[in-house]
Amino acid sequence: MAKGNINVSVENIFPLIKKFLYSDHEIFLRELISNATDATLKLKHLASIGEAKVEYGNPQIEVKIDKDGKKLHIIDQGIGMTAEEVEKYINEVAFSGAEEFLDKYKDSAKDSGIIGHFGLGFYSAFMVANKVEIITKSHKDEPAAHWTCDGSPEFTLEPHDKTERGTEIILHINEEDNEFLEESRIRELLVKYNKFMPIPIKFGTKTETLPKPEGAKEDDPAPTKEVDDIINNPNPAWTKQPTDLEDEDYKNFYRELYPMQFEEPLFHIHLNVDYPFNLTGILYFPKMTNDLNVQKDRIQLYQNQVFVTDNVEGIVPEFLTMLRGVIDSPDIPLNVSRSYLQADGAVKKISSYITRKVADKLKSLFNNNREDFEKKWDDIKIVIEYGMLSEEKFFDKADAFALYPTVDGKYYTYDELYNAIKAKQTDKDDKLVILYASNKDEQHSYIEAAKAKGYEVLLLDSPIVSHLMQKLETSKENISFARVDADHIDNLIKKDDNKISKLSDDEKTKLDELLKEVIPAEKFTVQLETMDSDAAPFMITQPEFMRRMKEMQATGGGGMFGMGNMPDMYNLVVNTNSELVGDILNTKTKKKQERLINQSLDLARLSQGLLKGEELTNFIKRSYDMIK
Amino acid sequence: MAKGNINVSVENIFPLIKKFLYSDHEIFLRELISNATDATLKLKHLASIGEAKVEYGNPQIEVKIDKDGKKLHIIDQGIGMTAEEVEKYINEVAFSGAEEFLDKYKDSAKDSGIIGHFGLGFYSAFMVANKVEIITKSHKDEPAAHWTCDGSPEFTLEPHDKTERGTEIILHINEEDNEFLEESRIRELLVKYNKFMPIPIKFGTKTETLPKPEGAKEDDPAPTKEVDDIINNPNPAWTKQPTDLEDEDYKNFYRELYPMQFEEPLFHIHLNVDYPFNLTGILYFPKMTNDLNVQKDRIQLYQNQVFVTDNVEGIVPEFLTMLRGVIDSPDIPLNVSRSYLQADGAVKKISSYITRKVADKLKSLFNNNREDFEKKWDDIKIVIEYGMLSEEKFFDKADAFALYPTVDGKYYTYDELYNAIKAKQTDKDDKLVILYASNKDEQHSYIEAAKAKGYEVLLLDSPIVSHLMQKLETSKENISFARVDADHIDNLIKKDDNKISKLSDDEKTKLDELLKEVIPAEKFTVQLETMDSDAAPFMITQPEFMRRMKEMQATGGGGMFGMGNMPDMYNLVVNTNSELVGDILNTKTKKKQERLINQSLDLARLSQGLLKGEELTNFIKRSYDMIK
Repeated sequence: MAKGNINVSVENIFPLIKKFLYSDHEIFLRELISNATDATLKLKHLASIGEAKVEYGNPQIEVKIDKDGKKLHIIDQGIGMTAEEVEKYINEVAFSGAEEFLDKYKDSAKDSGIIGHFGLGFYSAFMVANKVEIITKSHKDEPAAHWTCDGSPEFTLEPHDKTERGTEIILHINEEDNEFLEESRIRELLVKYNKFMPIPIKFGTKTETLPKPEGAKEDDPAPTKEVDDIINNPNPAWTKQPTDLEDEDYKNFYRELYPMQFEEPLFHIHLNVDYPFNLTGILYFPKMTNDLNVQKDRIQLYQNQVFVTDNVEGIVPEFLTMLRGVIDSPDIPLNVSRSYLQADGAVKKISSYITRKVADKLKSLFNNNREDFEKKWDDIKIVIEYGMLSEEKFFDKADAFALYPTVDGKYYTYDELYNAIKAKQTDKDDKLVILYASNKDEQHSYIEAAKAKGYEVLLLDSPIVSHLMQKLETSKENISFARVDADHIDNLIKKDDNKISKLSDDEKTKLDELLKEVIPAEKFTVQLETMDSDAAPFMITQPEFMRRMKEMQATGGGGMFGMGNMPDMYNLVVNTNSELVGDILNTKTKKKQERLINQSLDLARLSQGLLKGEELTNFIKRSYDMIK
Repeated sequence: MAKGNINVSVENIFPLIKKFLYSDHEIFLRELISNATDATLKLKHLASIGEAKVEYGNPQIEVKIDKDGKKLHIIDQGIGMTAEEVEKYINEVAFSGAEEFLDKYKDSAKDSGIIGHFGLGFYSAFMVANKVEIITKSHKDEPAAHWTCDGSPEFTLEPHDKTERGTEIILHINEEDNEFLEESRIRELLVKYNKFMPIPIKFGTKTETLPKPEGAKEDDPAPTKEVDDIINNPNPAWTKQPTDLEDEDYKNFYRELYPMQFEEPLFHIHLNVDYPFNLTGILYFPKMTNDLNVQKDRIQLYQNQVFVTDNVEGIVPEFLTMLRGVIDSPDIPLNVSRSYLQADGAVKKISSYITRKVADKLKSLFNNNREDFEKKWDDIKIVIEYGMLSEEKFFDKADAFALYPTVDGKYYTYDELYNAIKAKQTDKDDKLVILYASNKDEQHSYIEAAKAKGYEVLLLDSPIVSHLMQKLETSKENISFARVDADHIDNLIKKDDNKISKLSDDEKTKLDELLKEVIPAEKFTVQLETMDSDAAPFMITQPEFMRRMKEMQATGGGGMFGMGNMPDMYNLVVNTNSELVGDILNTKTKKKQERLINQSLDLARLSQGLLKGEELTNFIKRSYDMIK
């Protein structure tokens, strides 16, 4: 049996690294600035423990474009390297100096914020540059070194006369990558990836207006001076303690994150945990619309203040991807697949931690300022309802703060609602019937009929509320939801009292026959009812079950297969006690009877929004004639 | 000056390859089956040119799960390797045997379909396996070899007694990756990535029912037999010549691609080009809904019949991402960023080729069977309109087949429309006014008024059509679009003829004052018009410009900033020649005048869908009272 070692030659692997290391070429800048940041943080750490005998000062990182020379410079004032260290760290692909540093200074450097991991980032420079130079001066008393490599595995290394501490990387940008010599493109990348990194990053200068000197005349121009343009905020809000932040600080940070967003967030949640995993961040509730699809992908994921992605699917529970804000965690495995993420134990814990924090915050907002919470309910309900449907634990917690608004602008929790309507809205079979409308305008006459009986009518108008009702009906006992236009109100909540009919059974049979001759059976099922004499003579209703199933299908999931394509079903409820119905029976000619029935049917259809197009035009013409 | 070589050690790079080579662990199976396919295709090629003295036969690839042994086997009957070749190809990371093969057999093997590129695919096995074995017997007369590696860079190599030609890869699956020992998971992956690969892939067996033998009784069970379960179709439609395919073949292939899709595609486009780039594929037009967002990401991208992704953004012009189907091209750079893709010259050519092909196909469909094209227009218009808006070249070509339907179901091309309406619908300033409705029901009375004048009314109801009108108004000369309810019809197309007014100027002033007392100025601007006496007495209109700007804002882009939030603007057009308006003027008491005006206003609002909620309920109650 032969033994041996698998081999890898730099000639084979180097072209692959150059071409395919990262799927996005622009990543090179993030990687080089991460390296520059690490070099500075290492110096800071060594100075703090007394190992580096230097003045740490206020180091910064500078990015400079040399358009004529087709070069991009990244300059730091960090730890620097000796020629020997260049040999060790640079010439060995995939040897991680950061890991080595963290190993060496295990305990003291744990929270130093060092970013590097794999020792590959530097080589990403070759994705966009045909030649890379390093000029570096160590903080130790040794001469500077100058390393050059043209993308072949061969390099040169010679002394250099650089005297300031730190490292300068010079990229000779490829012809086809010259976008990276554009000021606007580099600025875009710095803002995208490095906006919140911990060391100040200078990119050119800007003009600042100074206060006028004393004694200056009114129309003297104010003096100005050129100052460094620092593109990042090294101390973003999420890295601070909640106790050190005011409400205004959170709002300012929101504006920093979303400069194009004019609306203020409704409230924020500061996340801060270091066991059993590290996670910080701030989540914001923005105003939501009813469109579930367009408002995702606004949470940004960072790792040690370096932007990673704005796709947090799998890390944040789906219903919370509608929120905005940032999450920063070194503990989320980044380069693994989404399906793997969802199965990962650590990620599951993070996800359920976030869910719990959000539920707790909502509960405390509700308890501390109910009035304000009610005001915001309409803008947040879609998130909460979605969460109640998709996360069982959130459903349980939400019982304490999920609201059920009425058409009159009152807001109940479930328990409050239950107690408020129990006495009146329990039917003869002991079932509690919760009445609701989905649109105050469209269902106005039905709402009025319910209110006339002293019933409460909820206004439930979010697109997924039919799913939520279904869930509530199965998790609460002996309740059912019914939309106000699902039937005549006395049928929706059946009581034992019997109405006295003005019509005899014979007359009812006659009426039924008459109606069925005129009213198309494929459109309306005629239903005679003994109602109050002043209730509407004709009324169109749409049975709850079928309608809700169709709605559930339309918003995805639930319902029954194929039901989305079923035609709408309507009943025509005819009030046999109304004066008009009596008139119809007693009208002499068939033709006049038909006209009365048709006009009444038109009015009932109008009330349900079913009279349209030519029929509506004709109705209006007839009506103009009638008032002339 | 020192010179040296950048170095890479297998100890450093191997863990990275294992962990991060591909962002998705599941990719390993695609890679190993690609290797097995290459091994088979290489043998085929060598046999065809006489270099391999073997019977090629009908080789297949087998995937086998050994759940108890926690092993996954991938077995091919391809070219195999000698011990020497294992040393050369396997033990050298990132050395591509496929590239070497293609180099060696440059001309003859150009179209052999060899997939491999980088010599890394095999190592993806270590993402899911802690130990990998290779048992391989070359087609050459040499003993089989057995290679084993436990994920450290150390391997063993020894002889093996395997006698059948080909290679067997055995993965000892990691504890945490045991999903890859589940039959359903492996089947899912095979179907996702390998469904159309060129060598048959066997995964277990299935039971097939045989015809009953002669003389069998009626209730004898039909005999069955176990046959290989081949999961792929090695010859998918797109690899064939269009001339060899019938319409039914394309439909069958659509069902193969989208087994859960019950609706048939409207038509297909077969792509087939090999210069200046290689591209084959079939695109299908499905029925479109009006929701632009939900129907993307249905085109699948393949490379040499291996599934790559269903995100073709950047490769296919955006408006065509609503289509379905497959594209197969070895020329699309895969591992580069989307932003890079969009700038890549080859990709741009591919994209514009696809656009041109689609336009040509649409034109020929229109020319060959206009009736059928008109029938399908409603289901495809959103793609075509979107294309006209986003691709200038497509806009030019679409002039020949883009259709403008009328409310009466006639379909015009732009030129036909122009000629049909030029005589009647040119106004006194020589501008051609194209009338349209967005909803036949809601704008019924306005449509009737326009048709009464002999005008054509288009039915333009797609969500982006307001943008298209804007574009047509600037690219065609001296035309403008106006919705039928934008004003009174005589104002929409102004002619020179003067109507005679029944009212004196004094009476008009009196009427104007009276109306302004009753009608809230913040809701309606009163506009007195001398119209035909039988036209509607009151009529509510909504000026074109403002409404269109708001619609454009709502569907994204265009319009003017902030306009989305402006309130709707309505005019109340009062026909001073109508009998009812005369009645109003001549009614004695103020109270009765007001009642007439309010009832007329209600009817006008009803016609525009503006009478809602309580006002509608009251209107209906009043109307019931009136017919009693």
